[in-house]
Amino acid sequence: MLGSTKIYGCLADPIDHVKAPTIFTSIFKEKNIDAVMVPIHVKKENLKNVIKSLKKIRNFEGMTVTIPHKKTMANICDHLEQDAVFTQSVNWIKFDKDRKLIGNNFDGQGFVAGFLSQNFLIKNKKVCIFGAGGAAVSIACSLAKHKIKSLQIINRNFDKAYELINKIKIIDKDLLVEVTKYKDNYLLNDYDIIINATSLGLHKDDKLPFDVSETSSNAVIADIIMQPLETKLLKKAKKLGRPVLFGKYMIESQIDLAGNFLDLW
Amino acid sequence: MLGSTKIYGCLADPIDHVKAPTIFTSIFKEKNIDAVMVPIHVKKENLKNVIKSLKKIRNFEGMTVTIPHKKTMANICDHLEQDAVFTQSVNWIKFDKDRKLIGNNFDGQGFVAGFLSQNFLIKNKKVCIFGAGGAAVSIACSLAKHKIKSLQIINRNFDKAYELINKIKIIDKDLLVEVTKYKDNYLLNDYDIIINATSLGLHKDDKLPFDVSETSSNAVIADIIMQPLETKLLKKAKKLGRPVLFGKYMIESQIDLAGNFLDLW
Repeated sequence: MLGSTKIYGCLADPIDHVKAPTIFTSIFKEKNIDAVMVPIHVKKENLKNVIKSLKKIRNFEGMTVTIPHKKTMANICDHLEQDAVFTQSVNWIKFDKDRKLIGNNFDGQGFVAGFLSQNFLIKNKKVCIFGAGGAAVSIACSLAKHKIKSLQIINRNFDKAYELINKIKIIDKDLLVEVTKYKDNYLLNDYDIIINATSLGLHKDDKLPFDVSETSSNAVIADIIMQPLETKLLKKAKKLGRPVLFGKYMIESQIDLAGNFLDLW
Repeated sequence: MLGSTKIYGCLADPIDHVKAPTIFTSIFKEKNIDAVMVPIHVKKENLKNVIKSLKKIRNFEGMTVTIPHKKTMANICDHLEQDAVFTQSVNWIKFDKDRKLIGNNFDGQGFVAGFLSQNFLIKNKKVCIFGAGGAAVSIACSLAKHKIKSLQIINRNFDKAYELINKIKIIDKDLLVEVTKYKDNYLLNDYDIIINATSLGLHKDDKLPFDVSETSSNAVIADIIMQPLETKLLKKAKKLGRPVLFGKYMIESQIDLAGNFLDLW
């Protein structure tokens, strides 16, 4: 730590469990970057005022934003980059040279980068995604930029799913997108990639989002749940011989994206 | 760096030269304290708002305060401890359990602790101090608590010097204190300890605050200037065989005091 050291933050409430300060501080060290990432513990109701002041701390450069601040932060930013506009939530912010607050959301790009890093292919694939919440929007919009063949959205709430379709159409108006409710008749064995982007699997007693045995034997089964590392869904998929993608790759791939966003590497 | 890591700051403008983040972060590491100290670069006009928000960052515990914020910070604190009241300036702040902002100034206590650490004696000594600014007030008030025999204050500005006498009288109403102007007739060889608490010596072309050759051959010559480590004054004093005290001891001794203040060790 020097007087010249740049400060980055990891914003959360509660704070003790966050891993980003450890990960980023050691990456900075490895890469000989004169910076640290510190945990920043702020209650939701104080966020706006805290950000106003961090703007005035001239060696404070940016933050990763986690629960419960992602939506609130999107409203506070001076400028949102595209993925943050679509999701109306941010997981990274930075101050530009005029100390304007810029926000983006790398969940979608992180998912795609993590997917590709495991040598799976996206182009021309038929994709089915469960959920239409923040993470699903981010992932679906990123997939739409990667020339998938079609997208099936499965969600209880039709309004949310149709909002998502509108966003996807802005990115690729010709992409074939359909919406189905949970428990409607859909043929899971028709898809090359099936993604759980709901929160099902986070808790021990959650039911599975879908029945893996109905999927095609070559279908890649992806989960965005990071904790547990191996969800019940992925455990079953592995047992049935399906290729699987763990949630952690979505996050790990965001390290590179964040470094670009912050002009660090 | 962990999610649970406590954050301390070092507040300054400019910031690049500050050493405290390096020193304290490595002490925390040595002592296995889950904390870091980061540099905090804030312009004077933004200080009040920044402090208001740091109050809301619940893992932000306290700061060392340097130029140009020491006086402004004293006005912002919810409570000042005694040395900060006398100097109306703070060099350490902490948030208590109710997130009230407590300030203190350890220059005086640091000077005395540094002086004693070099095996010099204070009790019953005749002390002469040059200057009546912030550092001089802090040092003089601390000396007054250590049963010195007498104190001679030498300062161009009489009003400031008499203000200082009033403060000293609050601490020890019986202490013999006198004020003289620079260049008045004073007999330097009458004192056991002579302290430069002016800024003379900070810049290369500064004249010496006094003529060391006029001091008693046993007199301890102390300087509060830290940069350069060995001022022209101390160089000359050493040459003439006087025992000397470097400015760095005042700061080094404050590490322990700060740790107590922050309930760290």
